[in-house]
Amino acid sequence: MPERAIGVFDSGVGGLTVLKEIVRQLPGEELIYLGDTARVPYGTKSPRTVLRYALESAAFLVKQRVKLLVVACNTASSVALPALEERFNLPVVGVIEPGARKAVAVTRNRKVGVVGTEGTVKSGAYARAIHDLDPDIEVFSVPCPLFVPLAEEGWADHAVARLVAAEYLTPLIARGIDTLVLGCTHYPLLKSTLRQILGEKVALVDSAEETAFSVAKRLRERDLARPVPPRDPRFFVTDVPTRFERVGGAFWGAALPCVEQIELD
Amino acid sequence: MPERAIGVFDSGVGGLTVLKEIVRQLPGEELIYLGDTARVPYGTKSPRTVLRYALESAAFLVKQRVKLLVVACNTASSVALPALEERFNLPVVGVIEPGARKAVAVTRNRKVGVVGTEGTVKSGAYARAIHDLDPDIEVFSVPCPLFVPLAEEGWADHAVARLVAAEYLTPLIARGIDTLVLGCTHYPLLKSTLRQILGEKVALVDSAEETAFSVAKRLRERDLARPVPPRDPRFFVTDVPTRFERVGGAFWGAALPCVEQIELD
Repeated sequence: MPERAIGVFDSGVGGLTVLKEIVRQLPGEELIYLGDTARVPYGTKSPRTVLRYALESAAFLVKQRVKLLVVACNTASSVALPALEERFNLPVVGVIEPGARKAVAVTRNRKVGVVGTEGTVKSGAYARAIHDLDPDIEVFSVPCPLFVPLAEEGWADHAVARLVAAEYLTPLIARGIDTLVLGCTHYPLLKSTLRQILGEKVALVDSAEETAFSVAKRLRERDLARPVPPRDPRFFVTDVPTRFERVGGAFWGAALPCVEQIELD
Repeated sequence: MPERAIGVFDSGVGGLTVLKEIVRQLPGEELIYLGDTARVPYGTKSPRTVLRYALESAAFLVKQRVKLLVVACNTASSVALPALEERFNLPVVGVIEPGARKAVAVTRNRKVGVVGTEGTVKSGAYARAIHDLDPDIEVFSVPCPLFVPLAEEGWADHAVARLVAAEYLTPLIARGIDTLVLGCTHYPLLKSTLRQILGEKVALVDSAEETAFSVAKRLRERDLARPVPPRDPRFFVTDVPTRFERVGGAFWGAALPCVEQIELD
């Protein structure tokens, strides 16, 4: 079992920010990434449809005989985690609980903002996860549907992004938040723009680092840490790889090697 | 045959702008609309994937025994028309050729701009269709990927939309175009913003009206015009209808009645 790979999936390129952090923290592990690029985005779709897509993506990775599943997509994590754990007999790590844990650790005034897709915000998953840890924290959530296309089009530092961010974040600033959870794996690309709007005093919480930490912990608990030298990560997508390779470079931080197209059942 | 419905499909809500115009021009016809909301958008996906989705959507409508198919999506029209005509034995009308025909009729200086999704612009379908009619017209095409999310989020008249439109259109204005083809069924919602950037002298070409005209012509040619009073249009989607109903209202111009969810094979 320990020599098996870790399977990571997302609707598209966003989860590469999580994959990158797992590679950084766990350089000995083998990784398989799946981006469901033929059906991206998940953030505007219904919980039922996202659940179906997540089960299909996970089934592909389970067939690759992975030892642990990482749901590197906030929208999928917000609706599919219990079903994935029930269906597949292996540990599943999502990005919501790690992000919530870090927000709880970081906030001083107990006013936490959450930005995410329509689906993630509607699910209320972050507020639930934060309240499970500390019921007295006030959570203010705002859907930011234009952040994903801005990040994907390479406009993360454009004047348009600043105007959009100001519009979305003003109500959160008015609430006096001292911590903002980036509840979508695309949003780390917008960090410097968000920082310009929020100023230096609001802490930005990016789930990637904390998720990789959770993965490491789960592997240790189950004696699943890999004892042998790793292979390079493998990348699969459900649409032709061209756009994934082009857009994903900014998320992965380097050119993506050898992306393979597959079909989900 | 004439008493059968016309089948109209799109990746989501955008095609409602075309459906509305067909209803206006052909009030006697029965209409069935399908929005593939579980897999929207098509504009960022590969030609091969869009072709597969178009064939599946068309197959659903053909099973409803429609007499004519309208591809009310520029991206799908740009890649799937020949395959649809070959696969299904019935007339197929797309939105590209009608839009091109109108642009050719409208331009005076023979400099035509085209805005559309990444997929539509990459296909070169508008330039080909315009050059088939008049090889001497200069065509300048620009992908505008942020227009769809802006229209869907109800930000069509927002300062952000003006800033984005200025960024996309400035190179077209510099080329001296006198006509701009709105090569995506979402873009008619942005007309007043585009008008502010372009001024009054550039003609805006919206394929909907001309597409409905083509539908009427094809029905007449084949003696397929409906002789009996119509039923209300029927609406189908592949994801839960909530978002389609909410966002689609602005495209349809009224509340959408009774939208039904189906699964494509």
